[in-house]
This record gives sequence, C-alpha cells and structure tokens, in this order.
Amino acid sequence: MSSTSQDTITLADYVFARLHQLGIRSVFGVPGDYNLRLLDFVEPAGLHWVGNCNELNSAYAADAYARIHGVSALITTFGVGELSAVNGIAGAYAEKAPIISIVGTPARATQEARTNVHHTFADGDFNRFAAMHTHVTVAQTNLLDPRTALEQFDVTVQQALIHSRPVYIQLPADMVDVKVSAAGLTSKISLPPISHGDNESKVSGRIIEMMHSAKKPLIFVDGESRCLDILDEVNEFVKTTGWPVWTSPFGKGLVNEHLESFQGIYNADLGSESAKTYFESADLALVFGPHFSSTNTALFSTIPKQANSVSFSERHVKIGSEITRDVSNKKLVALLLQQLDRSKISKAESPSKPSQTRPSVESSGLLTQKDFYRFVNPMLKPGDIVMGETGTASHGSRDLVLPAGSYYFTAVTWLSIGYMLPAALGAAIAQRDSENWRKRSGSKDASEDRVVLFIGDGSLQMTVQEISTMIREELNIVIVVINNDGYTIERVIHGRKQAYNDIASWRYLQALNMFGATEDEVETNTFSARTWGELEAVIGSGLLTNGKGVRMLEVFMEREDAQGFLLKLLNNQKARESSKM
Amino acid sequence: MSSTSQDTITLADYVFARLHQLGIRSVFGVPGDYNLRLLDFVEPAGLHWVGNCNELNSAYAADAYARIHGVSALITTFGVGELSAVNGIAGAYAEKAPIISIVGTPARATQEARTNVHHTFADGDFNRFAAMHTHVTVAQTNLLDPRTALEQFDVTVQQALIHSRPVYIQLPADMVDVKVSAAGLTSKISLPPISHGDNESKVSGRIIEMMHSAKKPLIFVDGESRCLDILDEVNEFVKTTGWPVWTSPFGKGLVNEHLESFQGIYNADLGSESAKTYFESADLALVFGPHFSSTNTALFSTIPKQANSVSFSERHVKIGSEITRDVSNKKLVALLLQQLDRSKISKAESPSKPSQTRPSVESSGLLTQKDFYRFVNPMLKPGDIVMGETGTASHGSRDLVLPAGSYYFTAVTWLSIGYMLPAALGAAIAQRDSENWRKRSGSKDASEDRVVLFIGDGSLQMTVQEISTMIREELNIVIVVINNDGYTIERVIHGRKQAYNDIASWRYLQALNMFGATEDEVETNTFSARTWGELEAVIGSGLLTNGKGVRMLEVFMEREDAQGFLLKLLNNQKARESSKM
Repeated sequence: MSSTSQDTITLADYVFARLHQLGIRSVFGVPGDYNLRLLDFVEPAGLHWVGNCNELNSAYAADAYARIHGVSALITTFGVGELSAVNGIAGAYAEKAPIISIVGTPARATQEARTNVHHTFADGDFNRFAAMHTHVTVAQTNLLDPRTALEQFDVTVQQALIHSRPVYIQLPADMVDVKVSAAGLTSKISLPPISHGDNESKVSGRIIEMMHSAKKPLIFVDGESRCLDILDEVNEFVKTTGWPVWTSPFGKGLVNEHLESFQGIYNADLGSESAKTYFESADLALVFGPHFSSTNTALFSTIPKQANSVSFSERHVKIGSEITRDVSNKKLVALLLQQLDRSKISKAESPSKPSQTRPSVESSGLLTQKDFYRFVNPMLKPGDIVMGETGTASHGSRDLVLPAGSYYFTAVTWLSIGYMLPAALGAAIAQRDSENWRKRSGSKDASEDRVVLFIGDGSLQMTVQEISTMIREELNIVIVVINNDGYTIERVIHGRKQAYNDIASWRYLQALNMFGATEDEVETNTFSARTWGELEAVIGSGLLTNGKGVRMLEVFMEREDAQGFLLKLLNNQKARESSKM
Repeated sequence: MSSTSQDTITLADYVFARLHQLGIRSVFGVPGDYNLRLLDFVEPAGLHWVGNCNELNSAYAADAYARIHGVSALITTFGVGELSAVNGIAGAYAEKAPIISIVGTPARATQEARTNVHHTFADGDFNRFAAMHTHVTVAQTNLLDPRTALEQFDVTVQQALIHSRPVYIQLPADMVDVKVSAAGLTSKISLPPISHGDNESKVSGRIIEMMHSAKKPLIFVDGESRCLDILDEVNEFVKTTGWPVWTSPFGKGLVNEHLESFQGIYNADLGSESAKTYFESADLALVFGPHFSSTNTALFSTIPKQANSVSFSERHVKIGSEITRDVSNKKLVALLLQQLDRSKISKAESPSKPSQTRPSVESSGLLTQKDFYRFVNPMLKPGDIVMGETGTASHGSRDLVLPAGSYYFTAVTWLSIGYMLPAALGAAIAQRDSENWRKRSGSKDASEDRVVLFIGDGSLQMTVQEISTMIREELNIVIVVINNDGYTIERVIHGRKQAYNDIASWRYLQALNMFGATEDEVETNTFSARTWGELEAVIGSGLLTNGKGVRMLEVFMEREDAQGFLLKLLNNQKARESSKM
C-alpha cells in the first residue's frame, strides 16, 4: 500500500488509498486498454481486483457490495465498458447504492487533439458518455488537472456517501502516474454535519409528544433506512416500544424478524385482515426511510396515512405534511430514544400474526410456488444474505422468515432482470471483506458466511456467466434455480401462452461444469428436485446447506404457477389499468 | 399480416407492416412488461421474434443483421431494457448499422401523472433515458399522439436509412392498440433524392479526367462503402480498370478477393514493401467509403494522400481537399463507369502480392497465431459470413482469403469485446431471412448458409449465453474458440503477467450441452485441437466444416502469443505514445 508519509504519490495511489480508507477491499470491473495502467495500482493498494465477465455484471456486483458494505468501486473503460455498465449504475441510483464508478479514458493529448481513436464515434467528441452519465449519477468529475484532481475526487466521493447514490469519475490514462501530494490522506473523506444549528432538537419534542399520546401506533421500516445509518436505532426503537412493526419489501431484513412485535411485510388488501384493520386505524406511524414506488407499496396501497405519519428521510423529517429540512435523522432518532419516557407510551396490542409453520405437503406432490419458500425456510441460518430475484422468486421469498443478522435483497423499483446473480457475487464478496457487515451481522467466522439466491430460469440466463467468478473467488453461494420454462412473471402479467415469453431450455446444472468448478464440486454441489419428497431429501442430507463453494439446486415448477400474493397483486393492477382506459 | 386494404389498423400493426416492407423478417429483443402488448403484434405481421438472453446481446445481434440486410429492428422495455442495450446501439452508431430501436414505455397516463412506477427512479421523470439516447442515435421520437405517430415513425425510420445509423422510437403501452389509418402503407418509406439538381454530372467530368491521366492509380475500399449501396459498382470498377485495389480492415469482404488486381488489406509500414512503395507513390487514389479511425488505419498510417484522392462518402464527394455536397455517390459511380473510356486508362502494374500458400507446419507442433488462420483457410466456402472478434482473432482473421460471395466482420472502431458472438447470431438470421443478402452472396440454398466465428476466450465469456439462441434458432454457425487463458490482446498492450488480464478457466465445449443442444449434437458438434496434426484431423474429417447446427472448435494457444502484425502495430503505438510524453 502506498504510504501517506511520502510527500508525493501517483494519482492512482491516491485514488486507491482513498477507497481503502472507505473500507473497500475489492474493486469490480473489466480491463480495457484505457484503464490497464490504472489497474496496475489496485492490488498494491491492498485492494482485491474482481475481474467480471462483463461490465453490466460488474456494476450489478458493485451495487450489491455497496448495499452490504456502504460503498463500492467499479472500474471500466471509456465508451464500450462504461456504457455496458450503465444500466447497473442506473439501478444503483434508483435504489440508492453508492458506487464510485471510475472510467479509464484516453490520454489528455488524444482527447484534446480530437483524435479518432477506438471506442469513440470517430468524430472527435469525447464528452458524450459523460453527458449520458449525468442522468444516472449524482455527481460527475473528470480528473484532468493535477492541481485540482484530489479535491475533485474527494468532493465527488463525498457526494456518493451523502446521497448514497453512484458517482462518475473520469481518469485519463496519462493522469494515472502524475505525482500528487499525499498530505490529504492523513485525514479521511468526512461527511460534513447536516446543519450547524440544532434542527433535531427543534422537532424532537413534538415527535415525543405524538409518541406519548398515541393510542394505536405503528412503526414502518422501508428500505432507505439503510442509507440513513439508523438501523441499530430503529431496532432499538422497536424493542423499546414493543409497537407493531411492518416493513416494505425494500425494508425487509432491516429489522430483526424475531422481535415480538414484528409483523412482516405490510400487504394492505393483499395481506391479513387484522393487519389491515390495525394499520388503517393507527393514530401514529413512524416511517423510517420511505421509498414509495408502485412496486414497493403494492401499487401505493401500503403507504401509511400522511396525516398521522412522522417520516424520516434523507436530510429531512416530515411530520404530517410539514417538512423540516437539514436534519440528521441519525441524531434525531438517537435523541428520540433518549427523550422517550417508556412509562408514557401505550402498550399497543399487535394484530394476530399469520402462522409461519412449514406447509404440510405430500411427499410425491410436485413443487408449487405457494408452499416452496416456507418449506425451504429451515435451510437458512443466521448471517445469511438472502436474495430473491425479480419475478416469482422475489414475491415468493418475501414469505421467508429471516434468521438474525441476515440481509435480504428483493425487487424494489428498478427491477432489472438479471441483476440478482451478479449481485449475489458482489454481496458474497462484501460479506467476506467488510468490517461493517461483520459488525452488523454479528458473524465471527467469515468461512461460515453464505449467500442464498433464489432465481428464475429467465433471469439466470441474462447474466449466468458470473457463476464463473463466484467459483473463481471460492465463495459460498447457494443458487436455487426455479425452472419453470420461461418468463413466468411476464406470463402472469400478459401473454400466458405467447411464444415471446418462452426461453431456451438449458441444462442449468451443467453451469458448474462449464464455468470451471473442480470435478469434485461438479459431482457434489449440484442438486435437483421436482417433488416435495425430493426437496426434503436434498435439504435433509445437509450437502446443499452445509457444503462449501458454489452449489446449485434446480427446482421444477409449472410454467404458469405464480404465488397467491403475486396473482392478487396483478389482478389489482389489471383492474386499475382497465379503469384508467 | 395486417392488410393495408382496411381503413384503420392498430399503431402496432402499422409499425410492424413498415418493418416488413423494409424486408425485415426477424425482430430482436427481450420481453418486459411495458412492451408485452406490443409483442403480440410481431408474429401476426409475418415477423419472427428472436428473444435473446439479454438486451445487450439483442442490440449486438440487431447490429449485425443491419449490416447484412441493410436495416434491422430491436424491441426493449423502458429503462432497464434500453439501457442494457445502449452500448450495442452506440457501436451501431460508430460503425454505421441502422437499427430501428423501439422501446415500450409506460402508458401515457402513467407518465403524465409522474407516477412512481418500476423501471424509473421513482421521481416522476420519464425523459432521462430518451435524453441519453440522443447521444447514440441519429434521430429520436415518441409516438404519443395518434394524429402524428405515423409520420413521426416514418420520418425517423427514414433517418436510419439515410444515415445508416440507429434511431430511437418510444411507444407507450397504451398507444399499441390505438387505431390509425392504413392508407400510408400503400407506399413504402422512400429515400428522397439527395439533390434536385445534378451535382453528379458537375463533378464526374473532372474525376474522369483524373482517371484518364493517372499513371499510377489505386483503388481503396473502406467499410462505409457498404452504406453507400455501391458495392456492385465498386467491384465493377475494379474489374474494368484492373487497377490495384486495397481495403481497410472495415472494407475487407466488400470487394471480391479473387479479382486479379486484389491486393488485400493495406498495412503501410506493417505490410509488404512493394505494396507500400506503390501506395505511397500513387498519383490517384479512388477512395470508397472512408472511415479513418486509428484502429481502421493502422494508427492513421494507411490513409491515402488527400491531394491525390477522390473520396466517395455519405452525401458528398471530395476531390483533393475540395468537398462537393449533396451528391448521390451511387449515381456518381454509375456515371463514372459509363463515362470512362477504357482505352484511355493506364494499365497499372500491381505490386507483387504476398504468397497466400498454406503454411507448412509440423504435425506435432503447437498451434500458433501466426500460422493458424492461413492453415484453416480451406475450411471456408463461398457465401460464408466470416467474423473475427476484437482481439487476436480480429487481427489474425484479416489474413484469411475470403471465398466469393462472403462477408467479413472485424474490429473497426467501437471494439466492444463481446460483440461478435451475438453478432454471429444476428448475421446468421439475416443470412436466412434477407433477400438482399441472397442477391449479394449469390447463395441459392439457404440451408447451405453458414457463419464462421473466430473468437477469443475472454470475449466469449462476455456474451456466451447467446449460443443458446443460436441452438434454439437451429442456425449453422461454426464457433472457433481460441483458448489462450485470458485477455491476450490486453496483455500485448499492457500487463503481460498481470492478474487482471486473467480470466476464469472454463470448459468451453460444455456450452452446447449446457445451452440445450440435443445429446447427439453435443456428441458430434464439439472439437478441439492443440497441435497442427489434431487441427488437420478435425478439418479433414469434414464433421466440423460440413456439419449442421452450432459447432464448436476449441483451439489452444499460448497466453502471450500474438500475431506478427499485431505485435508490430502495438510496438508502433508504444513508440508514438512515448514520443508524446
């Protein structure tokens, strides 16, 4: 690693020292000739280079790493590489994953002379890809001047950290080796205070009053809580108050599901009657990290009533419809925990919870979406990262009861099919790397870390080659492939029998073989099941669940089988749409 | 197919009838909920839906289809789909492949209400992805008004045809079924005349004069000739004059390599001395379809001297440095053929050609880049589409002597690694579909059509899943995988021993098995060779070359083996770069 005691270092040293200071230990990307020299500095900086099969996969992996660790880094090459990655960057913007996206660009002389080099449109324009990135990143910069490059870099990274969204940094090939001062490295990139006043105290009294007087309160945890750095406090809140707590799909996994008052994902019309009754008649809703997209709110039906809500968002709090800006919600929530008088709050009676027992099934019966997830729930263990890819797997996996110290990924808003497999790679690497994760999950033994991915066949096909990177990185990942012969989620929406929702028939379990697992692993790490009996045997053997490395379980389900909730949701959607026409 | 005799049809009917009129018979893409209803109309319009594994692969395939047929169509879904495809669209822009990219967007009511639906950033902004596409397409439109949608569509498609570059068309979900007039379908989308004057005659006399007086003339065919629709005329030119003809890499395959005066790709310092001597002392260069990027001109060293050049480009001709605009070069070249007095032109003596004999090798010797391509050259047959993916395969395959009626793809300017495998799919489908191709190649029997792809292992990994679509579409494609254990092209440029140029070790020949070939095909259609003897046996057996379906040949080469030309080129590049520093 470059030492900060030296007076001058290269710009590349500086960049990677900064990433290291952020706790980043792995960098994702693909080599290309405009970034090769830059890559020479990755490993010497104490960072592990994860070369992906393609750049979209890199971006997806970096997105997941950012969600687990708090920030991540991606390196691509000018034009071809960065544009291949851009859909992953956009998803990270939509769902708030701070990726530091560094693009190796042609040398300054080449750009200034408007030379018609490769990876351009041979028209002398070197600015269009940066212009495209203004739409999908929260800050952009081009490190072309040694005098200001360090400050540009720091300020841009700071934006990623503040907004929990991707940023875009261009680094010309001839800037890699320029000498810069190492002095700045003695202090880390810090986040400035949100305000110099004390906006938190100004609102805390009023919120405490509402909390003391509420008769029927609830807590609603949504996914942007992750970016507010308030998860410990929120869990403490739930424990302290004992108030019923629901999450959105995005919020699932952010609050301990084994707390007494934990209710699960709130589903409004599509969930239990008693939950709905309580939720709708609540006189106070504490809403943490709201993210109210259609797909995260069962088509806007699960949003707590604004009049009775206190919402904690990025840099502001909203009481009813009144917004107070420039508030540190981390500070505010801590203050509320301090100021709360436990004797004054109502002992809210939680609604009755739906049963979480394992479904009883016939051993010879074929697997169904409805019962599958509850049936396999016992295979999860504390500290698992559980992922349900967009499609039936996303909806089905929401039924899982998560063990303590786990984290959950599901389709939220961006819903880019193909995301979750490379994301599983990124999550597993973050699990291995990240001190933040270790603290959060309570996991002591990295070798016990594991990612469990549920994914449909259509999704798997999009980004399947990243299984090879999982194998190469020797990660512990269980991939459960739902083979239902096509895009079932699309069939359910439109075109049940249409050929365009078909996909090619693959021999999915050959993936380990093709992508370079050892012959032993190919032998021991693949499983399949069509019936409950077969599935039970796989789980019971312990080979799938207690094994090591990348394991694949292929389960077969009917082409048009979708889960009860999903079907109901889609029926609602259809009804709304037809009323609009 | 929707009939044009009806008074009104749906907008979707209109769109697909237009594509059909352009001779398009297959449409590439991936379903997504904002385009599902649109896809209902594809097959009824007489178009074949090719569902790809992901959208980048779709765009790459559509690019190749456009190069073979003249125009192609791609359908993706809003946000996630279109952004996954955007690097492929950019490549089509850079190298002039007219893709009609149609994006299914949310219903107008959803957009107008700024509803926070999925595939957005949940911020009510529906315009950013279209804004991004302004940088990579030559025209854009949004079909949201039934009164003007038809004209918008036609005018936008016309731009694709005129400029031979991709265009971007948004089609909201609720516009699919709106009724529009079918009357416009009675005439096709036509290209307006380039000028209403007769600019061609104004310049033809001067060019004829130059041709009559030239003592040492040459013809240089570059890749944009394809878009000028002048290939027949150019070949006629070469035959008529007998003047020595060189191509650029982009131009290879556009002129018949068996014509007496055909010289091959001009390589300046890196090629033969006698070619260089002739080229540099020529007193006239007829330059067809110039595309002077660094990578297409051996770092600008192969560009004919402007003072002695007549260059035929899109809508203009350049004599020396003087540009005459608004010229139909198709018309002009035909005029020149007419006006040329064969008795008055010099019988230029072509420089001696390098030998094209098959290299003599030891049967037990390991395969090398230097001799590989000439050695396998006999496996090519008339009408083949031959593809050399970016990397060593691109440089090596330039040595191939192409059979008559063939077409050649190589790395030109965009150089997006991963492009060529989905492009092979798109090319093979165009080969099957296209009347234009049939005319051009002279192929009578579509079942004899074939694509031969040379591709490195690193490239293959990027987009490998599209092999499954090749299998599903029952195409005749020979995939020659060069297994040299990583990104050899990058090693040659920088980082010979660096780990970032390594890739995972795959069992490549398992691809047919994994991606769903029949058990017979898996058995009969995979081959491998490490030595010349093994390679000879594979070619000699005829199983690889005369077989059907998707076939894979894995050949092993040394990690750092690169071909002579490539090495020389890169040394030149290094010398230039260090002189800049």
